[in-house]
Amino acid sequence: MIYLDYQATTPLAPEVEAAMAPWLGEKFANPHAPYTAGREAAATVEVARKQVMRALGKTSGRLAFTGSATEALNWALKGSVGREGRDEIVTIATEHAAVLDTVQFLGSTHKVHILPVDHEGIVDLDALRAAVGPRTALVAAMLVNNEIGVLQPVDEIASIAHEAGALMLCDAVQGLGRIAVPEQADLIAISAHKVHGPKAIGALWMADSVEPAPLIHGGGQELGLRSGTLSPALCAGFGAAASLIAERAPADHDHVESLWEMAHERMRDWTLNGSAAQRYHGNLNLRRDGLDAARLMSEVRGVAFSLGSACASGSGRPSHVLRALGLSDREARSSIRIGFGRYTTADELAEALDRIDTAAKAQ
Amino acid sequence: MIYLDYQATTPLAPEVEAAMAPWLGEKFANPHAPYTAGREAAATVEVARKQVMRALGKTSGRLAFTGSATEALNWALKGSVGREGRDEIVTIATEHAAVLDTVQFLGSTHKVHILPVDHEGIVDLDALRAAVGPRTALVAAMLVNNEIGVLQPVDEIASIAHEAGALMLCDAVQGLGRIAVPEQADLIAISAHKVHGPKAIGALWMADSVEPAPLIHGGGQELGLRSGTLSPALCAGFGAAASLIAERAPADHDHVESLWEMAHERMRDWTLNGSAAQRYHGNLNLRRDGLDAARLMSEVRGVAFSLGSACASGSGRPSHVLRALGLSDREARSSIRIGFGRYTTADELAEALDRIDTAAKAQ
Repeated sequence: MIYLDYQATTPLAPEVEAAMAPWLGEKFANPHAPYTAGREAAATVEVARKQVMRALGKTSGRLAFTGSATEALNWALKGSVGREGRDEIVTIATEHAAVLDTVQFLGSTHKVHILPVDHEGIVDLDALRAAVGPRTALVAAMLVNNEIGVLQPVDEIASIAHEAGALMLCDAVQGLGRIAVPEQADLIAISAHKVHGPKAIGALWMADSVEPAPLIHGGGQELGLRSGTLSPALCAGFGAAASLIAERAPADHDHVESLWEMAHERMRDWTLNGSAAQRYHGNLNLRRDGLDAARLMSEVRGVAFSLGSACASGSGRPSHVLRALGLSDREARSSIRIGFGRYTTADELAEALDRIDTAAKAQ
Repeated sequence: MIYLDYQATTPLAPEVEAAMAPWLGEKFANPHAPYTAGREAAATVEVARKQVMRALGKTSGRLAFTGSATEALNWALKGSVGREGRDEIVTIATEHAAVLDTVQFLGSTHKVHILPVDHEGIVDLDALRAAVGPRTALVAAMLVNNEIGVLQPVDEIASIAHEAGALMLCDAVQGLGRIAVPEQADLIAISAHKVHGPKAIGALWMADSVEPAPLIHGGGQELGLRSGTLSPALCAGFGAAASLIAERAPADHDHVESLWEMAHERMRDWTLNGSAAQRYHGNLNLRRDGLDAARLMSEVRGVAFSLGSACASGSGRPSHVLRALGLSDREARSSIRIGFGRYTTADELAEALDRIDTAAKAQ
C-alpha cells in the first residue's frame, strides 16, 4: 500500500514505538499512584509534557493531555463560552467538525457566527472584524485546514480577537511541526497521531491565566482541570513524536516541498482546490471535471488516498469545506485529497499519482 | 516490587500486549478511513466491541468506546439529566470522584441527592426510595467500591430507579470480570486498565433506546454520539482483555478467594474497613489504631499499596469513602488499601503482608 492520507493519520514513527514499548509491558503503574513505580510513570508524563510544550515553541502557559484533539477543542469551546459574561463564539465555515459541531451545539443556547471563506479558502478579515465584539468569548480558527491544507491568517485573527477582549483558539492539529503556531493564541489544540505519534492522545495548551471550565470532571488528574487516568505509554509516545518534530522539522519541510513540486507539476492538468500559496504543501486536494472520485477510489487499489476528512467519511455528504469554497456538489464529488510527508518517497508518490491520473483519464 | 494496588490499575496481560502490537507498528491507518487499511482497522474495532459486550454479558444495547471510564461516567450523567423534564440525580456518598465531582458540578443547576451509607459501606435502600421520584433522571451506583471493595445492591437500586421511571447508571469499573453487572442497568461504565487492558480507553454501554446527549461533539465516530479518532491498538487491547475475562473469570475468582482467605487470616488483628461479606475479595482495606499510614508507605519499600484512590492521592485529604463509613479523620489516616488479583502469587502476598504488619507494629 502506498499511503497518501497523511491528513487522516500519520505512520507511527519507529522512535515513538520504542518510547512507548516499556509502558506497554512491565511498567504499568498508575501515574497518579504515590509509590516509586507510580512516581516513575508520573515523571515520564512530565517529560512528555515538556517535550510537547517545546514542539509548540512554548515556555509559558500550561499543557493538559486529553484523549484527543476533538476533546481538547470541545473543552476549549464549551469551557470558554460565557466567560466574563461573553456568550458569543466566532469561527469559520471550513473548520473541522470537532469545532463546527461543537459550535452548532452551543448555538442552541448562545449566539454563534460562522464566517464564510473566499474561493481560495481564506477567511475575510473584514467580516471577522465585524463579527467580533464585546460579547465575543472566543474566536476559533484552524492553522492548517485538514481537507485543503489552506492556512488561515491566524496572527491577524488573534489580534482581532484580542482587540475585542476575546480569546483566540487555534486548532493546530494539522499545523504542528509544519507551520509555526500563532504566538498570540490563548488556546491551542493538538493531536499526537497527526505527527507520527499514537492515536487517542491530544493536548490543550492554555496561556497563563486562561483556564476553560472542565469538560470532564473527576479526580482532576490534569492540572485539576481534566479527569481520567493518563496513559504513560501514550504520553511517552506523544513526547517522542514532539521531540522528533524539534529535530526533524527543517528536513521534513524540505522533503515535503520537493514532493509538492514534483506532485503539483505531475498533476498539472488537474485543478487545485484552495490556495496554492497560503497552504501547507503536504496536502494536494485536486479535482477533475466529470470525475467520479468515489469510483476512482475503488479503481485505484493499493493507494490509500481520500475524498476528504476521514471523520466525515461514510456520511456520503459532500465536503463542507469544498462547498464553502464555492464548489458545486458535483465539483466536490470530483475531488480527491492526497496527503504526504516524512516517510513518503518520491518514487512511491510518483507511481501513485500516475495510477490515479491514468484511472481518472480512463473514466 | 510486589504490586498490591489492583484497584488503581492492573498489570497489562501478555495477551493484551500481543493483541495491541500490530496496531502500534505497521498497521496505523485511521479506522474511519474508507480504503482497505482503514476498513481493516475498523473491523478490529468492531471485533473488540463484540468482545467487550460479551464480557459484559450483553447481547442487546450498544457500546461506545471512550477515552476513559471517567469520560463515560461524565457522558452518562451530563447527557441524561434533563431527559423528559427530569432534572434530579441520585447517587451515593461513596461513589468515585468521576461521579461525585460530576454530580457536584451538576448540582449548581440541578437538584442532586447524595445518599449516606451505613458503617459497612452499603446504601440505605429506604433512603434511596425516599430520594427517587418522578423528577429523578438517573440513579448512579457503583457495582464494587474502588476503595473498600464493598458491593452495592445494584439490582434493587435499578428496580427502585425503574419504578420511578428513572434510568440506572452502574459504574462497573471495579466489578467487570469479577462481579456480575446488574442486568437491569440502563447505562454501564467500564475501563480497560482495571481488567489487565491498556490505559486511556473505557466504554459506555447503553441499553436499547437509551441515548445520553453527546459530551464530545465532532465527527461522531462512535455511533454518532462520541467524537474523536479511535485507536485500534487500544480497542484491540480492550477486546483481548475482555476475551480473557470470559476465559478466566472462574479461575480468577477462585484465585482471589484463596488469596483473600490467607490474607484476611494473616491480618486478623487489623480492622477491615467495609463489609466483609458484601465485598469483592480482591480488596483488603485495613486499619490499625494509631497507625500513620502515610509513614508506613515510606517505610515499606518494594511493596506497592495505597492509602485509597490513586485519583485522589496527593490531595492530602482523608478518603471521602472512609469518612462516609463513619470513620474519624484519624482512623481514615490509619487505613491502607491492599489490592490483588490474577497475577498475584500467594507467596508474594504473604511476604508483603508480613512486611507491612511488621513495619506497622514497629511504629
